[in-house]
Amino acid sequence: MIDAYLCWFWCIEYRWKKKEITAIPKVVVVGAGFAGLRAVRHLADAKAEILLIDRHNYHTFIPLLYQVATGFIEPELIAYPLRKALRNFSNVDFLMAEVKQIDLESKTLITDGCSITYDYLVIATGSQANFLQVSGAPQHTFPLRTLENAVTLRNHIIYCFEQAVKQSGEDMAQKLTFIIVGGGPTGVEMAGALQELIHDCLIKDYPQLDLRQAKVILLQSGSSLLSTYPQSLSKYTLRQLRDRGVKVHFNNRVKAVSPTEVVLEDNTRIATSTIIWTAGVEANFPEPKEAVATASKNKIEVLTTLQLPKYPHVYVAGDAAYVEQNGKPLIGVAPEALQLGGAIAKNIKLQLRGKAPTAFNYFNKGRAAIIARNAGVIYLLGKIPLSGFLAWLLWLGIHVYYLPGLSNRVKLLGAWLKDYIWRDRSVQQVFTATNSPDKM
Amino acid sequence: MIDAYLCWFWCIEYRWKKKEITAIPKVVVVGAGFAGLRAVRHLADAKAEILLIDRHNYHTFIPLLYQVATGFIEPELIAYPLRKALRNFSNVDFLMAEVKQIDLESKTLITDGCSITYDYLVIATGSQANFLQVSGAPQHTFPLRTLENAVTLRNHIIYCFEQAVKQSGEDMAQKLTFIIVGGGPTGVEMAGALQELIHDCLIKDYPQLDLRQAKVILLQSGSSLLSTYPQSLSKYTLRQLRDRGVKVHFNNRVKAVSPTEVVLEDNTRIATSTIIWTAGVEANFPEPKEAVATASKNKIEVLTTLQLPKYPHVYVAGDAAYVEQNGKPLIGVAPEALQLGGAIAKNIKLQLRGKAPTAFNYFNKGRAAIIARNAGVIYLLGKIPLSGFLAWLLWLGIHVYYLPGLSNRVKLLGAWLKDYIWRDRSVQQVFTATNSPDKM
Repeated sequence: MIDAYLCWFWCIEYRWKKKEITAIPKVVVVGAGFAGLRAVRHLADAKAEILLIDRHNYHTFIPLLYQVATGFIEPELIAYPLRKALRNFSNVDFLMAEVKQIDLESKTLITDGCSITYDYLVIATGSQANFLQVSGAPQHTFPLRTLENAVTLRNHIIYCFEQAVKQSGEDMAQKLTFIIVGGGPTGVEMAGALQELIHDCLIKDYPQLDLRQAKVILLQSGSSLLSTYPQSLSKYTLRQLRDRGVKVHFNNRVKAVSPTEVVLEDNTRIATSTIIWTAGVEANFPEPKEAVATASKNKIEVLTTLQLPKYPHVYVAGDAAYVEQNGKPLIGVAPEALQLGGAIAKNIKLQLRGKAPTAFNYFNKGRAAIIARNAGVIYLLGKIPLSGFLAWLLWLGIHVYYLPGLSNRVKLLGAWLKDYIWRDRSVQQVFTATNSPDKM
Repeated sequence: MIDAYLCWFWCIEYRWKKKEITAIPKVVVVGAGFAGLRAVRHLADAKAEILLIDRHNYHTFIPLLYQVATGFIEPELIAYPLRKALRNFSNVDFLMAEVKQIDLESKTLITDGCSITYDYLVIATGSQANFLQVSGAPQHTFPLRTLENAVTLRNHIIYCFEQAVKQSGEDMAQKLTFIIVGGGPTGVEMAGALQELIHDCLIKDYPQLDLRQAKVILLQSGSSLLSTYPQSLSKYTLRQLRDRGVKVHFNNRVKAVSPTEVVLEDNTRIATSTIIWTAGVEANFPEPKEAVATASKNKIEVLTTLQLPKYPHVYVAGDAAYVEQNGKPLIGVAPEALQLGGAIAKNIKLQLRGKAPTAFNYFNKGRAAIIARNAGVIYLLGKIPLSGFLAWLLWLGIHVYYLPGLSNRVKLLGAWLKDYIWRDRSVQQVFTATNSPDKM
């Protein structure tokens, strides 16, 4: 590690010129998701140098990934450039890098390029798809966790239609069968949006295809959809999806996956070219040099203050942390991540002032999912179940409100209005950038 | 070729059900650029079945590629979905495929998947970058001919800045040196837009970089920029670019290129990670089984009626055709391609009615290029030179007018306004879709 410290040095060098070099504490936040970005913003008024590190140079608004995958919106709309988000904070820097290892004892991060020391560390690296040891799933299914995932899936869905045009019989049916594994919010939203994409929009573009053959199949291993919602909302969701033509199968797990079919536990085989994997996630974090205790879904166990046991200067936020509330683990949605990020910022500021950090307490504003046109479900404050048009409208409002960037909000509203009035989505291009390593 | 005819069969099968099978002539248009798409649209009222074939499922608005590469606009904005463009034409089909070979004698196209027969053929496959036998250029330079090229280049430019942050001295200077080879309209537009991107926009996002070190260098082998424009406009363009900080070098050719530098004929070496290639194009068409005569830039020689000599049912349009006007070859801009496409549609319709095709005659409305904010050049009707703010405004108006899709026009105006008022561009994300062959 010849480059140790160099990286950090260059990152703050321009400010060292401006002000006296002081022993100002350095806070490094790894991961620019909901938790990490919120922590950075709330730390911006602290007497500390903040460095945010992420593999990407943008913040992904994950709740709308399924809308990118189904052609509602351009991917750039939900990918807010981080440097723009941080422009107004003079004590915050950003570094585009991948953290490879964390050395908790020496307070050092090893990235793909340089090492960085910290006084305080926030691990907010989120989660990744968990393929649950299903054979073939990592290679042959489409997860929906990153912007790249969403664009890859969009390209693939449209390409299936372009191929179906050239085929007939079983080959065509295979191309027009879309399987979604997992009946949580992502699976439900993807199923509804895909069904609408096919039967409202693509039907106009492929008059030569008999789109009655096109199938959207949602596979749920349990006995109800949206299992963390009240039963009335689960039932409403199921009825809505079935009314709109989505096939929903319960109590059956995926056993194996190949490029041409999915095999269920009861040995049912379904021929398909598209298996969308929303069935499970697990925490995703750079391997710490020292062992840390993990709980279910590989999440890191933390104190109620969100500190790592034995390392009071290291915090874990978002999907990477195992946090319980009233004896139940948090489920891993954006509002939780935002509150975790905020709480960590507060605790670091307390520590900076020599005070003790306080315990995290989650305030449940509720959770929401959208099914399709005019149909949504909301479990307000974790108490009041709402469904139908009002819930759908509220869902739209919440997501426009939280999307970063004014012009993005305007574009999002425009895209939704276009789809609502004309049943037309603008993004149907199949294209990828040729990304030769030589050129990157 | 077991699949011969199958492909065509499936494409029109749905219409065969609706109407009696007649010996209706089949016109196949290969390439959905300006020429091909115009030909298809003008053939839509002919008594013929039209099939448009393209590798992509969208029409690329090539004149704005440089704006995608420099972060003005999202790529989807200049990529109009072809099926949408053709929705209202009941006798037109589209096939996403790559034509591998043309068998002129048996009137058959061989694509990557099936063979297709035609009665009339329009070859409108456009052009590709010509690297002029410069060693290393095909591997290590960025051409700007396709949407993929533009997105790859945008990702690379921003990534260079993200890397420069971690470096110092010569390494940093190399990352911040951007070389454009070729002083035609694309080179000039790219140079101006890139200089503005760096010094108006990125300067806000990389306060730690000394952007006086960032260089945009335009290399022109001849002695003037925009050599097909009058001298007064060439001089104006040069003055404008230099005033804005672009370094322009004349009378020097590129000898060799590597991932880290460019070597000129006088052995000057410039360290750089980014060489943008706009120096030459050549016609790009699927190899015909029978030899066809080609002229300069590998363009196919055609009769004045745009028919292939000896094959009166085959036409060549756009950049693939060698067409002279008043003794000079056409230069390969969009208005020429549009008029060529229209003329071919007219001639095919004449032939369908048993009449003789007529000679093509180009009406030169003029040509236009943009340099930077408030500065453009227009050579109106090939007679009247205009420069400055008015030419700039006219250029913007022409491009908004010709861009396909109302909502795209609105978004384009919005993006330009945003850049004009706030000197801010929205697209700074580095991302590519992971496109595993298994998943396509």
